[in-house]
Amino acid sequence: MELIDNVSVAKKANVYFDGKCISHSLTLADGTKKSVGVILPSTLTFNTGAPEIMELVAGECRITLKGESEAKAYKAGESFNVPGDSSFQIEVTDTLHYVCHFG
Amino acid sequence: MELIDNVSVAKKANVYFDGKCISHSLTLADGTKKSVGVILPSTLTFNTGAPEIMELVAGECRITLKGESEAKAYKAGESFNVPGDSSFQIEVTDTLHYVCHFG
Repeated sequence: MELIDNVSVAKKANVYFDGKCISHSLTLADGTKKSVGVILPSTLTFNTGAPEIMELVAGECRITLKGESEAKAYKAGESFNVPGDSSFQIEVTDTLHYVCHFG
Repeated sequence: MELIDNVSVAKKANVYFDGKCISHSLTLADGTKKSVGVILPSTLTFNTGAPEIMELVAGECRITLKGESEAKAYKAGESFNVPGDSSFQIEVTDTLHYVCHFG
């Protein structure tokens, strides 16, 4: 199983959209922040502050970035980038396990 | 925010009961295994392999251990022990954030 080593993990999770998205915040030794999470099958819109790279560990989704008209499909092993101060719609078609990399 | 330091975290979560319980597995530097997770409001029955100590970080629940007839209430800041090779029923009345300590 793939691991992220040498991190501090928050005991309390982030629960979004009534639990359809649950993540735990991580801090690496160099101060870098990431999160590991799950999004259950659903269609949700997320706002971003910092730019994000979403690394998909398991599952499948369709992403529509703000300002784009067409959704793009992504699956386990792939990543997509989201600009800062933006938003994206995600349609999760198979429970998504992800690592979110910030900055 | 309370942290658990110096751990390896599994990128892929454990999803139980259609996502009503989601946890991420942790391994400490000395090899000790723990997990951090969330249980959404619901009534669920969990089976245990190893003995567990459930540390409640946020939320509220009522626990009925196998062989007991009465539920006991627990809330954030409290812990309860579950024997190995056993089971317990948990009624989560306010979304539960927990750390599970094994062994």
